[in-house]
Amino acid sequence: MKKAVILVSGGLDSATTLAIAKSQGYVCYALSFDYGQRHRIELQAARQVAKHLGVVEHKFIHINLDSIGGSALTDTQINVPTQGLSDQIPITYVPARNTVFLALALGWAEVLSAYHIFIGVNAVDYSGYPDCRPKFVEAFEQLANLATKAGVEGHSFKIHTPLIHLTKAQIIQEGLRLGVDYNLTISCYQPNPNGYACGMCDACRLRADGFSRLDVPDPTQYHSI
Amino acid sequence: MKKAVILVSGGLDSATTLAIAKSQGYVCYALSFDYGQRHRIELQAARQVAKHLGVVEHKFIHINLDSIGGSALTDTQINVPTQGLSDQIPITYVPARNTVFLALALGWAEVLSAYHIFIGVNAVDYSGYPDCRPKFVEAFEQLANLATKAGVEGHSFKIHTPLIHLTKAQIIQEGLRLGVDYNLTISCYQPNPNGYACGMCDACRLRADGFSRLDVPDPTQYHSI
Repeated sequence: MKKAVILVSGGLDSATTLAIAKSQGYVCYALSFDYGQRHRIELQAARQVAKHLGVVEHKFIHINLDSIGGSALTDTQINVPTQGLSDQIPITYVPARNTVFLALALGWAEVLSAYHIFIGVNAVDYSGYPDCRPKFVEAFEQLANLATKAGVEGHSFKIHTPLIHLTKAQIIQEGLRLGVDYNLTISCYQPNPNGYACGMCDACRLRADGFSRLDVPDPTQYHSI
Repeated sequence: MKKAVILVSGGLDSATTLAIAKSQGYVCYALSFDYGQRHRIELQAARQVAKHLGVVEHKFIHINLDSIGGSALTDTQINVPTQGLSDQIPITYVPARNTVFLALALGWAEVLSAYHIFIGVNAVDYSGYPDCRPKFVEAFEQLANLATKAGVEGHSFKIHTPLIHLTKAQIIQEGLRLGVDYNLTISCYQPNPNGYACGMCDACRLRADGFSRLDVPDPTQYHSI
């Protein structure tokens, strides 16, 4: 059986990614990060998603990226934009976040002798984050094989990005087909303490648009801001 | 004034690297990691080294790599080898450590608008860790510019490795020239609670050999194991 480490944030994309990895026959190890994010409640969703879909182990790693700041997601002094997507990289970009997350996934994967890492990055309905682009992922894969003892010994790490060229509607469609319960997921950048979404941030807008285009019920519960 | 982030472990190499960065005119930001290492006392040395050499800010980031394990440095159930260096990658290798450290340095550097990162890796008198090799560093530099908003905006991150082709003796010589107080540094993988070195691990052997070849007094204090 092939082992895989899957990054699970608690959101829609990573839940779908986990379901895809499972459907491809991987023995799944979920990895989530408590990184000082303002929407830390997403970790509860991550726990439920991983439990619902079934994983061998679910590890949580703590990194205080809020001590670095520089993002609306890790510095509560910076407001989350709510005016809709633009063609600029938004202030919700967290410096080097996916590099940090993939690096830690790589470390765990090497210990597990798992040579497959799944990440739910998407370069269609997304916020323009540089570390979601195919060329970033390709560069990380090259790095992974130079960085590790496993790489020196001839193993080859593969970074899987099954969502990279899908629209949000296509992602949801695939997830529903594979039995993902999107009611368990939280995408919002600033949910309330009950996990209800704001409906105004980029993550909420992309998610709502995906359900709308697919014409299936959106289970998201909203609070008023 | 050019800003730089310098990885400072508390050891001999990173102290020298910091001194070199300063001598090259960089405004220095020191970054240290509390990563579950068995020789966590090195962080006290890191603090003293950074203070002695002078930095604008010294940040400590916590990451529980000990929850991943897979190394004698992060899993106290695995003994630190003391029989001397071999031509194998030793069990003190920490999976993906330098990838994780550089990723976090990159995040902080981006927030600071610092486009220079210094790391004291060495590929001469070293333990054969894959993430100390020049091609690893080159791959990370490429990744850094694809991973970041700063990279998209045309800034270029440079990973500086001033020690990469130096012997341990040459590193010490350069550090002494620049005023490094090696008495403040701790290289040992298993120092006692006073910070005294074991004298038997690879890090101790490489350090002692460097001082010996240079024929200068070695300030290291040893305990008996």
